[in-house]
Amino acid sequence: MAVYLDCNATTPVAPSVVQKITDALNDEWGNPSSSYELGVKSKKSIEEARRHIAMMIGGKPEDVIFTSGGTEVNNIVIFGIVDYYKDWVNSQSSVEGINEKPHVITTNVEHDAVIQPIKHLEKKGVIDVSIVPVSRRGCVVPQDVLSQVRHTTCLITVMLANNETGVIMPVEEIGREVNSQRKKEKLIRILFHTDAAQGIGKIKVDADKLKVDYLTIVGHKFYGPRIGCLYAHGLGHETPVYPLLHGGGQEQAYRPGTENTPMIVGLGEAARLVCENLSTYSRHMETVRDYLEEKLKEAFGEGHVTFNCSKDVKRLPNTCNVSLAGEGLVGHVVLSKCSCIMASIGAACHAQNKPSGRILLASGVPHNRAVNAIRLSVGRETTTDDIDIAIEDLKQSVTTLSCNKSS
Amino acid sequence: MAVYLDCNATTPVAPSVVQKITDALNDEWGNPSSSYELGVKSKKSIEEARRHIAMMIGGKPEDVIFTSGGTEVNNIVIFGIVDYYKDWVNSQSSVEGINEKPHVITTNVEHDAVIQPIKHLEKKGVIDVSIVPVSRRGCVVPQDVLSQVRHTTCLITVMLANNETGVIMPVEEIGREVNSQRKKEKLIRILFHTDAAQGIGKIKVDADKLKVDYLTIVGHKFYGPRIGCLYAHGLGHETPVYPLLHGGGQEQAYRPGTENTPMIVGLGEAARLVCENLSTYSRHMETVRDYLEEKLKEAFGEGHVTFNCSKDVKRLPNTCNVSLAGEGLVGHVVLSKCSCIMASIGAACHAQNKPSGRILLASGVPHNRAVNAIRLSVGRETTTDDIDIAIEDLKQSVTTLSCNKSS
Ligand SMILES: Cc1ncc(COP(=O)(O)O)c(C=O)c1O
Ligand SMILES: Cc1ncc(COP(=O)(O)O)c(C=O)c1O
Repeated sequence: MAVYLDCNATTPVAPSVVQKITDALNDEWGNPSSSYELGVKSKKSIEEARRHIAMMIGGKPEDVIFTSGGTEVNNIVIFGIVDYYKDWVNSQSSVEGINEKPHVITTNVEHDAVIQPIKHLEKKGVIDVSIVPVSRRGCVVPQDVLSQVRHTTCLITVMLANNETGVIMPVEEIGREVNSQRKKEKLIRILFHTDAAQGIGKIKVDADKLKVDYLTIVGHKFYGPRIGCLYAHGLGHETPVYPLLHGGGQEQAYRPGTENTPMIVGLGEAARLVCENLSTYSRHMETVRDYLEEKLKEAFGEGHVTFNCSKDVKRLPNTCNVSLAGEGLVGHVVLSKCSCIMASIGAACHAQNKPSGRILLASGVPHNRAVNAIRLSVGRETTTDDIDIAIEDLKQSVTTLSCNKSS
Repeated sequence: MAVYLDCNATTPVAPSVVQKITDALNDEWGNPSSSYELGVKSKKSIEEARRHIAMMIGGKPEDVIFTSGGTEVNNIVIFGIVDYYKDWVNSQSSVEGINEKPHVITTNVEHDAVIQPIKHLEKKGVIDVSIVPVSRRGCVVPQDVLSQVRHTTCLITVMLANNETGVIMPVEEIGREVNSQRKKEKLIRILFHTDAAQGIGKIKVDADKLKVDYLTIVGHKFYGPRIGCLYAHGLGHETPVYPLLHGGGQEQAYRPGTENTPMIVGLGEAARLVCENLSTYSRHMETVRDYLEEKLKEAFGEGHVTFNCSKDVKRLPNTCNVSLAGEGLVGHVVLSKCSCIMASIGAACHAQNKPSGRILLASGVPHNRAVNAIRLSVGRETTTDDIDIAIEDLKQSVTTLSCNKSS
C-alpha cells in the first residue's frame, strides 16, 4: 500500500525504457566507435536517441550532447564561462575587460547542481556573481535579472521550474530580453542557460521559444535513466561549448568517454514517450495534484493547510508543496510517521531530515511554515485512489503526533 | 558466424550483470538520498556494489567513488593536481615553488583519456609535463620515470597495461620507488596514479601491492556497464581528491549527481564475478590467445607473422597485436575484408580507419609493421572454434587482397 509522491526527486523508469535498456545491454554493447556492424548498430541507436531528445525540446539533433546527468551538464555550462570570457578578452583589439572577471547572474532558488559550481568558481576568485532573489511568490522577476547585467556578464542561468515549489520561471521573457539586449550593445555575448530538469515531461519545453543557448535535460525526472543531455543552440558555432572532460573524441569531443549506449537508448525512449504523450501526462498529473490539494483542505481544514506556492504564479502540474499548521508538525517528522507515503521535504541531495528550508525561505515562506513543509509530487501513474490512501496516512501521522504532544 | 575479438575496446555485458541492472531499473529506482525504504534500499545496493569493487582491487569500500567512466576518473585525478599543488604552496612557510608549475610525469603510450587532459593543462600553461618514452619492448623502464622527478613533481601516471599491445607496465616497481623517495625528501608528496582499465578482469590487480594512490576502473572492459570508479588510497585523508563536478553531496561530495543505481549495481556484480573467477577467466583467455598465435603462424608462416609485443615482457593474457607481412595488408583493410571477425587496429575512440600508429610507433614497432597491425583481443567466451573461424576469415581476406593486388 505504498504511495510514491516524490516524482520531483526521481521517477520510476517507464517499462518501455527498461525494455530498451535491457535489449541494448544484450544486443548493442559494441563500441559505437567501432567500424564493424555491432559498433555501427550501437552508433545508429545513439543517433536515433539523439533525434528523440531533439524532437522533445524542438531542437536539432546535432545540438544535443549526452552526459552522465544534470549535474554534469550544469557544470559544463558554468565552468565553460571562464574560458569563454578569456577567449573573448583575447579576441578583443582593446584591453577592455582584461583585468575583470566574467560575471554570472542566477537566482536564489536554483538547485545545488547550479549553485555549487557557481559558488566554487566565486570562491576561487575567477567569477563575479549576482544572485537575484525571487519575489514573494517564489518567482523571479525578469527585470530583476536583467538589471544586473554588466559589461562583463557572460552567463545568465535561471531554472525552468523549481524542484521544491514547482514555480515555473519566466525563462521565455528573460530569453527574449537577453536576445534584444544582445543586438543593442557590442559587449560579450551573454549566454543564457536554463536547467529544465523539472520541466521536461511535465510541461512543454521548446528551446527555441525559450530563446536559451543552453538547456539541461535530466533523464530520471521523466521516467528515463540516470543520465542527461546538454542542449546548446547552434552548438560549437553559435554557442560555444568548452568540454569539461578530455579524452577520446566521442560526442564531437565535447564529452569524451565510451558512450553509455544502453542508457542513451533508454533516454531516447523516455523522450519519445514525452513527445507522444506529454499533454496526457500533464493533464493527468494536474488532475491528481488538484484532487490532492482539495482532499488536504477537506482533511485538515482550510485554515490548517497552506500551499507554499501561490495560485497566481504558473506552476508545474505535479507539485504540491504544503505545510500543515501545528507546532509538532515539522515536515520530516510528519513524513517519518507515515506508513504509506514516500515523499520528501525538498531536494533529495540535501542532508537527510534537516529541513534546509533554503528554497522556501528564499521564496518568501515564513520560517515556521517552511519547517512544516512537505513536497508531494505526483507522477504519470499516481491515481486518486493513491491520494485517498495518502490522505488517510497523513491524518494518522498527524493524529499520532498530536497525541504524543498532548500526552 | 561472427567472431568478436575486440574485448579491449569493450566487452559484452555478463548475463548476471544485465539481470542485476534490469532488476534495479524495476525495483531500485528510488533516489538513494531519500529516507524512505525505496531510497534506503537503493543506497544499500550501492554500498554493496562498492564493497565488491573494493574487494576486487584489495581496497577499502570508503576509498571507492563511482563515476560515469574511465575518462572521468582520469580527468578527476589529473585536473586535481593543479589545486593540489596550489594548496601545497599555500601551506608552505617558505615561498618555494610559488612561481613554478606542478609537474606531471607520464608515458608516451597512455590512453587518450590520460594524455588529452594532460595536454589540455599543458597547453593552458598550468602544468609542466614529462612524457617518458617506453623502451623498445613497449614497456616503460621504472628508472626512466623516476629520473624525471623534480621538486615540483606531484603526479606520476602510468597505465597498468596497454590497450593496444597488452604490455603490462612495472607499476608495482614504480610505486615502491615513489614510496621510498617520498620518505627521503621533504618535497610535495608525489601522487601515483595507474589507469587500470585494461588490467582488471584479466590480471590480478591489488591496489596495495601496486602502491598506487589512485587507480582507474572501467566497467565495460570487464563485462560490466559503461560506468567506472575512482579508487583513492585513504581517500580524503591520505590522498586528496579534488572534485571536478559540484552539486548535491553525493559520493561524499567527491562526485555529485544522483547516483546511477542500476549501473552501479551492475558494476558491483561485474566486480563480484571477477573476484570469484579471475583465475579461470585469465587462464582461459591465455589458452585461447596462445592458440590464436600458434594458428596465425601456421596459417601465414612464421616469417610472415610478427607479434607486436615481445615475449620477454609481461603482457595481458587476452591480447594479440599482430602484423601480417605484405604491402597491401594494411590492418584496417585486412579487417574490412573479413566477414566474421570483429576487431580493430587500436583504440576505438581514434578516428576510424586511420591507423594512428601512435602507440605502436612509440613502442618501437617500425612504420611498415605498425600500419599492418591488427589487435585481436579475446574474452571469457571466446573459444578455439571461434579462433579457427577467425583464421579462415583472415586467410580469405589476405587472399582477396593479394589477388586484387596482382590483378
Ligand atoms: C532542478 C534540478 N537540476 C539538476 C538536478 C540534478 O540532476 P542529477 O542529480 O541527476 O545530476 C536536479 C535533480 O536532482 C534538479 O531537480
Ligand atoms: C587504458 C584505457 N583507459 C581509459 C579508457 C577510457 O574509458 P571510457 O572510454 O570508458 O571512459 C579506456 C578505454 O576506452 C582504456 O583502454
